Amino acid sequence: MTTIQVGCDLSYNVANPTSFLFSLAAARTAQQHINQELLCIYPNLPFQSTQLGIEHIQIYRLNAEPGPLKLEYRAQIELIPDKSVAAEIIEVQYAQLPDEVLPYLNPSRYCESDRLAHFAVRLFGNLSPGFAKVMAICDWIHDNLDYQSNSTNASTSACDVLIQRVGVCRDFAHLGITLCRALCIPARYISGYALNLQPPDFHGLFEAYLGERWYLFDATRMASLEGFVRISTGRDAADASFATIIGMAELIEMSVWAETTSPMIAADQYLSPGAVSTTN
Amino acid sequence: MTTIQVGCDLSYNVANPTSFLFSLAAARTAQQHINQELLCIYPNLPFQSTQLGIEHIQIYRLNAEPGPLKLEYRAQIELIPDKSVAAEIIEVQYAQLPDEVLPYLNPSRYCESDRLAHFAVRLFGNLSPGFAKVMAICDWIHDNLDYQSNSTNASTSACDVLIQRVGVCRDFAHLGITLCRALCIPARYISGYALNLQPPDFHGLFEAYLGERWYLFDATRMASLEGFVRISTGRDAADASFATIIGMAELIEMSVWAETTSPMIAADQYLSPGAVSTTN
Amino acid sequence: MTTIQVGCDLSYNVANPTSFLFSLAAARTAQQHINQELLCIYPNLPFQSTQLGIEHIQIYRLNAEPGPLKLEYRAQIELIPDKSVAAEIIEVQYAQLPDEVLPYLNPSRYCESDRLAHFAVRLFGNLSPGFAKVMAICDWIHDNLDYQSNSTNASTSACDVLIQRVGVCRDFAHLGITLCRALCIPARYISGYALNLQPPDFHGLFEAYLGERWYLFDATRMASLEGFVRISTGRDAADASFATIIGMAELIEMSVWAETTSPMIAADQYLSPGAVSTTN
Amino acid sequence: MTTIQVGCDLSYNVANPTSFLFSLAAARTAQQHINQELLCIYPNLPFQSTQLGIEHIQIYRLNAEPGPLKLEYRAQIELIPDKSVAAEIIEVQYAQLPDEVLPYLNPSRYCESDRLAHFAVRLFGNLSPGFAKVMAICDWIHDNLDYQSNSTNASTSACDVLIQRVGVCRDFAHLGITLCRALCIPARYISGYALNLQPPDFHGLFEAYLGERWYLFDATRMASLEGFVRISTGRDAADASFATIIGMAELIEMSVWAETTSPMIAADQYLSPGAVSTTN
Repeated sequence: MTTIQVGCDLSYNVANPTSFLFSLAAARTAQQHINQELLCIYPNLPFQSTQLGIEHIQIYRLNAEPGPLKLEYRAQIELIPDKSVAAEIIEVQYAQLPDEVLPYLNPSRYCESDRLAHFAVRLFGNLSPGFAKVMAICDWIHDNLDYQSNSTNASTSACDVLIQRVGVCRDFAHLGITLCRALCIPARYISGYALNLQPPDFHGLFEAYLGERWYLFDATRMASLEGFVRISTGRDAADASFATIIGMAELIEMSVWAETTSPMIAADQYLSPGAVSTTN
Repeated sequence: MTTIQVGCDLSYNVANPTSFLFSLAAARTAQQHINQELLCIYPNLPFQSTQLGIEHIQIYRLNAEPGPLKLEYRAQIELIPDKSVAAEIIEVQYAQLPDEVLPYLNPSRYCESDRLAHFAVRLFGNLSPGFAKVMAICDWIHDNLDYQSNSTNASTSACDVLIQRVGVCRDFAHLGITLCRALCIPARYISGYALNLQPPDFHGLFEAYLGERWYLFDATRMASLEGFVRISTGRDAADASFATIIGMAELIEMSVWAETTSPMIAADQYLSPGAVSTTN
Repeated sequence: MTTIQVGCDLSYNVANPTSFLFSLAAARTAQQHINQELLCIYPNLPFQSTQLGIEHIQIYRLNAEPGPLKLEYRAQIELIPDKSVAAEIIEVQYAQLPDEVLPYLNPSRYCESDRLAHFAVRLFGNLSPGFAKVMAICDWIHDNLDYQSNSTNASTSACDVLIQRVGVCRDFAHLGITLCRALCIPARYISGYALNLQPPDFHGLFEAYLGERWYLFDATRMASLEGFVRISTGRDAADASFATIIGMAELIEMSVWAETTSPMIAADQYLSPGAVSTTN
Repeated sequence: MTTIQVGCDLSYNVANPTSFLFSLAAARTAQQHINQELLCIYPNLPFQSTQLGIEHIQIYRLNAEPGPLKLEYRAQIELIPDKSVAAEIIEVQYAQLPDEVLPYLNPSRYCESDRLAHFAVRLFGNLSPGFAKVMAICDWIHDNLDYQSNSTNASTSACDVLIQRVGVCRDFAHLGITLCRALCIPARYISGYALNLQPPDFHGLFEAYLGERWYLFDATRMASLEGFVRISTGRDAADASFATIIGMAELIEMSVWAETTSPMIAADQYLSPGAVSTTN
């Protein structure tokens, strides 16, 4: 069992009345137990808090008037380790895939798996199915893409990154998802907090459906999967923005962290102004 | 109340052991009551029948060995008319949109709404919100695209069709969805049977979320919405194929129809060999 | 006859030994007579000066060692006005087009005229041929694109800009060229200095071949064609960069101008250090 | 010295008055001497015959009325072998490249070298420059693309083919050109007749500028370079169509061949009706 402190601070300058949807809190899953959690919003605005879907994605929605907006999130999470023996995990035949994972075989905005069918079969079609094949995809991505901050933008897809061979974590994940789907392995995008990520930021990974459940993969090799705290799940990054902004607001400052050290939430913080939401 | 007979015949030549997922049966919604329904598969193979999601999409899954495969579907549907007064329907502000419709604002494989934001606001941003704005989008599409059979393929997206200005029903629907999402109106793809469609085929339309529910739109103006029998619902056509084929099979023959005339299912058809599934 | 002073200052920080090709001097054409011209390069490096092709495009090539590099170009040009009566200019039938203009009908990197054939015929196919049709294309571009600095980048093509509906002068020119070619009118890209352009920069326009010669068009309407000093001619902007840099150098500062006022080159400037090239 | 017989028959059904430009005759270069040449057109229409550019590309232009149009081309060519010792050929530094080859460094419609810069440097940047590097590019293309008839279309570019990993000769050539340009090696498209090509068709190859001249490369390895008869030279296939058709005509039948066997032109053929153009 690993205990992780995660958090982020976001500062906005809101120009017009603006609606925000934040997807930055730890998801409520069987693998991650939330010991403590704190959300502060300045000014002290009302907000909605909802858990979505079978993945219990936690979202916050609020409306802000023009002026500064600051959001502080902190949580202490206990991660339950995954005991599966990876080498033995094989793929599920299409005919046995449960109905609810089938949409994760379809192409999506950033994962045009229909366009990569020939490529995927050519490179990975003869490998032994299952965990080993997805690991081979991750290895190929790691060996053939360069990681470079700010090298891509919000419209960059898996096909784009396959051409330019440089990207950030979300691009690595998109390419992994796309190649899996092209090989008939359901795959989806996961955002979250990664321990000791450099440079510190939200992280993007992917999951593949193998042996009757989802398994996490990170083609960037930039962080340990053991210290990963999941936030959101989606078809691709289009479903997993940490902040959706409808109106006009500029992000002024942002910091994100995930650490194993020291207790996170001091007692007096509970007295701080702003909206507070805790579980334990 | 309108009574419609719909059906399709599909003939395949299966080359290798192949898994099929068919999404061609009428959905079980409050607006369409299924009087009679018949599915025959030759040879007589076992199949799974499932209803998916809150839209009660009906899918059939089966595995076929090499050889001919024929599928016959027939249903008699009563459609309950929609009494909403269109002109009064306005948009829902983003802050009031229910959580479950939010994914339908995200860009998808064939609906790159992130790329059309400037275009959409430029053309439609100043129109009065709601039903009238979505109708203006449909009118624009109708006036600026040509309908032409076989003019696009499985990789054609809304941006592609905006450039080539020619497409089929799914392209018209994709462009409608994309423009809606770019204007912050949730929108999704609907496949189904359309009365008296020429040439006869499955039809593709779209729905926009307005005034607290989904409304159907057809930018092709090729068929009456009153006689439309819905099959599937998805982010775009990637989620709504009438047949998903994993393996190797060639479609030899296909016919699709939707009519108001005469009783559909003769008594002796119930005696025909093959799998039979009926409701009434 | 109009007398124009044009010039530019470019400052680079060269990191590695780097080759430069500059295309920023006034072309030697029958319509523009070069009264005076000055090129200074700091440090005083040897350079090659060549006039290319039937358009007499003037290029400078040089190799620089690491360190600062500064280039100053000034010229005084007399422009001979074009007396053609625009309204009477008609298109040349394909069969009568001279061989040497035929390549300007082919699609190019930023002008995918093959993809816009249906669009172009749909919008402009029924207009009267010739000057009026190209003017209609310019009007359409002006009315349907927004000019916005930094809205596009070096990979933006005419099809991209048709989707995003925002661009800079080169994008406006590329779309004009693309629509002309799609309508079987030869068209090409022209870079140059435009009088009183705001913000000051090199300008990009296009030429269409009509009535047995090339005519200049500017869909941005940002500058008068009468005060335009031509630099380069190409299939699209890929052929008309003001600077091609092979190696590693950063552009530190750049200013560009074109004015009608006052004598440009003071006598003592001729004594300044650096490479000097003059004509009169 | 190799003697080759080349030829093609093209049959069209012309629907409207249509202009044709054919680029299917052997070019007049120092490496290929044309012993005999015959062009027959049915019906017997007047046509223009021109040699273009420094490559002496031979084109035929004609106008046809509605009805059948048939073109027969035959030539006997002596090819002068190239004695260059390939292994010793190195690249020319950018600064030493002659002005006239510089346009072949620019990206073009089907060769988006600007988009492949990172990819090209990553894969080939460390190889020894010159002939060996271009051969490495050809080997990579041969090993990573599958040749498949009809797998691409007239809008497929090098980036597209890099994604789908399947194409025809023109796609192989485009990818070779694009990678060369991305590595600062001038490269261009060559169309022609290839000895014993299967299936018989016009062939597409590419040339790279190395060691002060152009060298021919064929990443498909489908035909010997020794038996290649050059027709056209261009930036990419957009400049090298065997037939450009302005109007409306359908290609009914086409055959293309290149052989070493037997005299090609029987004496009585010279008496056949139709336009005749011979050299010897």
